[in-house]
Amino acid sequence: MNIYKGHIIYTPTPQAFSTIENGYIAVDDKGLVIEVSKERPASYPDIPVTDFGDALLIPAMNDMHVHAPQYRNMGIAMDKELLPWLNQYTFPEESRFKDIDYAYAIYTRFIHDLWLNGTMRSVVFATSDLRSTLLLCRLFEKVGLGAAVGLVAMDRNCPKELQVPYEQFATDMAKLVEDSKEFSTVFPILTPRFIPSCSPELLKTISRFVEQMHLPVQSHLSENRAEVAWVKELEPESSCYGDAYNHYGLFGQTPTLMAHCCYTEGEELELMRRNRVMAVHCPMSNCNLGSGIAPIRTLLQNEVDVSLGSDVAGGHSLNIFRVMQYAIQMSKLRYAQSEGTVPFLTLSEAFYMATKAGGAYLFGSGSFEKGYAFDALVIDDKSLNYSDPKKGVMPYSLPQRLERFIYSGDEHTIVHRFCGGKEIYEPKL
Amino acid sequence: MNIYKGHIIYTPTPQAFSTIENGYIAVDDKGLVIEVSKERPASYPDIPVTDFGDALLIPAMNDMHVHAPQYRNMGIAMDKELLPWLNQYTFPEESRFKDIDYAYAIYTRFIHDLWLNGTMRSVVFATSDLRSTLLLCRLFEKVGLGAAVGLVAMDRNCPKELQVPYEQFATDMAKLVEDSKEFSTVFPILTPRFIPSCSPELLKTISRFVEQMHLPVQSHLSENRAEVAWVKELEPESSCYGDAYNHYGLFGQTPTLMAHCCYTEGEELELMRRNRVMAVHCPMSNCNLGSGIAPIRTLLQNEVDVSLGSDVAGGHSLNIFRVMQYAIQMSKLRYAQSEGTVPFLTLSEAFYMATKAGGAYLFGSGSFEKGYAFDALVIDDKSLNYSDPKKGVMPYSLPQRLERFIYSGDEHTIVHRFCGGKEIYEPKL
Repeated sequence: MNIYKGHIIYTPTPQAFSTIENGYIAVDDKGLVIEVSKERPASYPDIPVTDFGDALLIPAMNDMHVHAPQYRNMGIAMDKELLPWLNQYTFPEESRFKDIDYAYAIYTRFIHDLWLNGTMRSVVFATSDLRSTLLLCRLFEKVGLGAAVGLVAMDRNCPKELQVPYEQFATDMAKLVEDSKEFSTVFPILTPRFIPSCSPELLKTISRFVEQMHLPVQSHLSENRAEVAWVKELEPESSCYGDAYNHYGLFGQTPTLMAHCCYTEGEELELMRRNRVMAVHCPMSNCNLGSGIAPIRTLLQNEVDVSLGSDVAGGHSLNIFRVMQYAIQMSKLRYAQSEGTVPFLTLSEAFYMATKAGGAYLFGSGSFEKGYAFDALVIDDKSLNYSDPKKGVMPYSLPQRLERFIYSGDEHTIVHRFCGGKEIYEPKL
Repeated sequence: MNIYKGHIIYTPTPQAFSTIENGYIAVDDKGLVIEVSKERPASYPDIPVTDFGDALLIPAMNDMHVHAPQYRNMGIAMDKELLPWLNQYTFPEESRFKDIDYAYAIYTRFIHDLWLNGTMRSVVFATSDLRSTLLLCRLFEKVGLGAAVGLVAMDRNCPKELQVPYEQFATDMAKLVEDSKEFSTVFPILTPRFIPSCSPELLKTISRFVEQMHLPVQSHLSENRAEVAWVKELEPESSCYGDAYNHYGLFGQTPTLMAHCCYTEGEELELMRRNRVMAVHCPMSNCNLGSGIAPIRTLLQNEVDVSLGSDVAGGHSLNIFRVMQYAIQMSKLRYAQSEGTVPFLTLSEAFYMATKAGGAYLFGSGSFEKGYAFDALVIDDKSLNYSDPKKGVMPYSLPQRLERFIYSGDEHTIVHRFCGGKEIYEPKL
């Protein structure tokens, strides 16, 4: 076991930060938190303390929606909204991942960048190609980062070379599940791309994996107006976009993550609540693709849980701290547009979304409460915490230090990263 | 004179980038651009070429609205909208700048950070304290960065210690103007904080400086709904907020910058157009303070020029590239909310706002056209421009490299900075 010491800040609930100045966290040999405390835990006098001095010790980030094969498109191609953007930029790039060398070149850099940004667990769309998807799993596993990896199911309304017929998908998915048994930090997640790219037969095939293997599910939901209208055409019998997934048993029958939810309301909202479907808010992407402002306060008020995703390459950065900024900022625009009637997100609410919300739902991580996997970041914010008492410049308070790191810091101030109790050093892939 | 070589990208007009691969810029001894060309300029065979190799060579950033004394509040205190935020966080911090040691400690770090982020010219609010405002001017001058610096005029609706009666303001302002005669890169700008904090007598006093000395003017305009309503109460005879400034001869009688304009429309819009008042768009701040989305497309369509400002500490970063991102992103939210009827900003429009719009209006900089001051950044984006042809990973195109730097790069990829033809090295203050 290990004992770590630092200025501990985390969010057991969205309402407030728990802060322990010079506190201790005891972690067992399985990498789970035993105890978090103000005093050195008395039960383990022989265990030396790893002391991080004046640094902040916070839960690591979880990116609950990200497209690994779009990594090379990050920060470019921002001139279209969703549907033309997929056709013009996304699908051609994803087609290249049948070339395993290309996949290796991009996926290694993607994983390095996740590491750099302090994201210890992620929920990933790979491509419809099995071989490179298995490669991605193995790379995560080798580095020791947690991931739910999706072999993307798609058999219509996209380039031929990305389409996989449902029989083939069933074979590929079974192989992925089989091979995943050797993994410790990585597991598969069922990933219908979205209703428009999945035939009813394919959705039924995926549904059988839910029933028989109880795998979790991820997809996209109500991201963009044109997309919502298209789904209505494709699935006229469904009362809403979410109901189309539900119709096929892919909407909360197992843990289910639905990215975006910009236009979720009414029956869809109620269905998410009832089925415990988690919304993944991707505000950076929603800005870049002109999708709109997701009604996050409304989702929360209706007891739908919300986590955060970078949605690279819709988002232009893997930095989840920056995604937190956007989540708060977009909620403030909604606040302004509602003339102050819809309260904006607080910093602790956004931090909870980036840590415990998604972590607890899928990975058993995201908090420092007893029993959680010790996923943590050590933040050396000296450069941000300038003080000079002789000149009257006093240090920032702990909550201010965290806020300042989130808004004005960057990944270079992260000096240690832990996933499941293990320190994760810079990947050399 | 000097000749520089690199991949040149700039925006003579908002509509498109001008790009010259491996191009040349000749700069005269006054620091002005003589010529930009594809071939080595033939007229100066004896002048050696400074070759930046594969780097990008772009105009430097202009921050047309920033509060130097709020630098320490950057990235904290994001839980209020404008008026309570001023009272609770801003005014108490500004009050500290009567302590010259404190001012020195903060202003030196502020200037270093401007430098780091590639901002070579800025339009700055200091405080109402003359001594520390002069210090700020001298620090800019010493480093060689361009700045229009404002001694902030305020005599009501703020803490006593920040108020300066109009007679005293006249004396202080005259002293600032006098002392500024020794400066080469720095000049004073008249700076009524905003209508609520300026009595009619004070506004009349400022107006006399406009008439007699033809100094430029900066202030805040229509940032926030409660502020707009308050101004209506304070100046019932004015038809709009902008008309209140105009009433006192502070709205385009000389070059005038008005920050925010979130709620500018109708008569105010028309007055800005007619008087050639420049809007300074501060989208990062407008998000953080819940002010709203400024109607930038409408301003542009009505021939009001728009530049960009960080508005630190309303904004949480001095990085104007990041402000460009927000300008585009907020215009995309407006696009979404207008169901696609209001076109979003293009990258070249945002780049123009960050460079030529403000630069040409106030500093004679911001472009590489003949006669412009050579304000430039050299961007070594190797880390962003990953390629490996053996694995099928090809380099990005030049426009993609610029876009990727703007969205996903950071200040550490800026390797040279020029202001007015002089290379500006890291300030050691």
